[in-house]
Amino acid sequence: MSVTIITTGGTIDKIYYDAKNDYHIGQPQAPKILARAGVTLDTPLISLFRKDSLDITDEDRALLKKTIEAQSGQKIVITHGTDTMAKTGVYLKGIPGKTIVLMGAMYPAEFRDSDAVFNLGAAVMVAQTMPEGVYIAMNGRVFDPARCVKNVAENRFEEI
Amino acid sequence: MSVTIITTGGTIDKIYYDAKNDYHIGQPQAPKILARAGVTLDTPLISLFRKDSLDITDEDRALLKKTIEAQSGQKIVITHGTDTMAKTGVYLKGIPGKTIVLMGAMYPAEFRDSDAVFNLGAAVMVAQTMPEGVYIAMNGRVFDPARCVKNVAENRFEEI
Amino acid sequence: MSVTIITTGGTIDKIYYDAKNDYHIGQPQAPKILARAGVTLDTPLISLFRKDSLDITDEDRALLKKTIEAQSGQKIVITHGTDTMAKTGVYLKGIPGKTIVLMGAMYPAEFRDSDAVFNLGAAVMVAQTMPEGVYIAMNGRVFDPARCVKNVAENRFEEI
Amino acid sequence: MSVTIITTGGTIDKIYYDAKNDYHIGQPQAPKILARAGVTLDTPLISLFRKDSLDITDEDRALLKKTIEAQSGQKIVITHGTDTMAKTGVYLKGIPGKTIVLMGAMYPAEFRDSDAVFNLGAAVMVAQTMPEGVYIAMNGRVFDPARCVKNVAENRFEEI
Repeated sequence: MSVTIITTGGTIDKIYYDAKNDYHIGQPQAPKILARAGVTLDTPLISLFRKDSLDITDEDRALLKKTIEAQSGQKIVITHGTDTMAKTGVYLKGIPGKTIVLMGAMYPAEFRDSDAVFNLGAAVMVAQTMPEGVYIAMNGRVFDPARCVKNVAENRFEEI
Repeated sequence: MSVTIITTGGTIDKIYYDAKNDYHIGQPQAPKILARAGVTLDTPLISLFRKDSLDITDEDRALLKKTIEAQSGQKIVITHGTDTMAKTGVYLKGIPGKTIVLMGAMYPAEFRDSDAVFNLGAAVMVAQTMPEGVYIAMNGRVFDPARCVKNVAENRFEEI
Repeated sequence: MSVTIITTGGTIDKIYYDAKNDYHIGQPQAPKILARAGVTLDTPLISLFRKDSLDITDEDRALLKKTIEAQSGQKIVITHGTDTMAKTGVYLKGIPGKTIVLMGAMYPAEFRDSDAVFNLGAAVMVAQTMPEGVYIAMNGRVFDPARCVKNVAENRFEEI
Repeated sequence: MSVTIITTGGTIDKIYYDAKNDYHIGQPQAPKILARAGVTLDTPLISLFRKDSLDITDEDRALLKKTIEAQSGQKIVITHGTDTMAKTGVYLKGIPGKTIVLMGAMYPAEFRDSDAVFNLGAAVMVAQTMPEGVYIAMNGRVFDPARCVKNVAENRFEEI
């Protein structure tokens, strides 16, 4: 059983550099999380880009789409910033034969109390259990990207 | 959307008392994990018992079965020790109208690097996405309780 | 035995708000750290201000100095951003009858691998074991504020 | 500046093996803790034995004493189980020219909320700031091993 992990940046991979008194996007955290959880799936990793999701362009999305289409595996998890996750999800609709799950985190994975680990556990399962299509796995729920929104004030995804 | 959490003990809830120089099973960890992850599902909690799964008897399993049958909700996650998780899963087969997911952890949830958070994220999703039946969510995979075994030496679940 | 904790902000207290896609300075982390460590000292807390240390003014330093002078206790730990920690330390020299220890963190205390907990353990001890004067406790060492500098590139304090 | 770390086992180094449904004493945790804290001291490590402190014999203590005497460095931190820490401390009294600090943890260092990191930060500082002698650094305080006791019920060290 194989789930391909494609990383695009976002809060989940943010680290903190005191030297710059600032955070930025570091190495993908997903492989560490999968290793600690004792995951026995094959989880090939594609570190595609490292961007705040507000900076992801339609060119980036086109690259992401082509990358997914090029995979032999059917099950895809994409780690992604939350601000434009739904937009990317809608963009990716219509790729035949793939179950694509977008996930991210409200707090960097390096935080003690981050939601990153829970959300990745959730996403990996949605990729294995749902039929082809595009899904968002956040806040313990499965969303249709065309029918959800990030509630910024409440820091969570909601159905619309 | 609602997922009922039934806790039965196991490593996931083990804490450490230096006073006794030993581990024992404490309060259920699931509510803390769900809160940190920002889960917006309803997750009613039933703390049914606190046992090492090697000490779970068929009377305990009968109580667990009746408790599940008594729930109005269809989606059930059971936190359970790993040693007899498959046995309990087989015992619970045949309850109509319920998607039942057993999960646990190889390391206590209080550990920095525990698999508990990932596994709970996984189980909550399996409960929402799979048809009625009984499943085990461990090591990033979905198992049929009748067709898996805990490989004690490798500390993981495997298909048989 | 009593050690007074005065908090001024800095990286140690930085939290992450995805809503703002940014870090800012939250509640003091010191009380949580002391509680988890089972510290049995009296540790009265004065949350004086919440600033990045680059934004601390000489007015702030004057307030800090008066606040220290007003304490009945002799042992003082100040949590402080690292960028101007040495400058504040030099400013505080000459307060009679007080052992004053400045500390902070290169990574927010909310990080899994932050240096905050270690540094606070260190600072609390320096406050109890050293004669009156002003000290910096960082990187496992005791520095004279007049004779140390933050090496920004290496992200550590060094003697000069 | 150099502080020699001698590890003897104890709760601080306990890990959990689900395979055995039990904990046991693993590799010394001190080097990881020192690295995460960005400690810039020289901290040579001597992993002397791995024992629950109730199992430490007077032969073990004689070996520990000889090991300390053989060090060229003057500052020594010993990681040790808490149950007989005071006894070992009294045994080590009288070694000339050494500042010896015993420390341990009420919860394994692998726990999210362990006191191990704080206590090691504390011990490393006591080793550098106190005159020759033997000390215990626990619960944020410095104890004379001859005048303290572990209060097992309250899970803390107290003066007697």
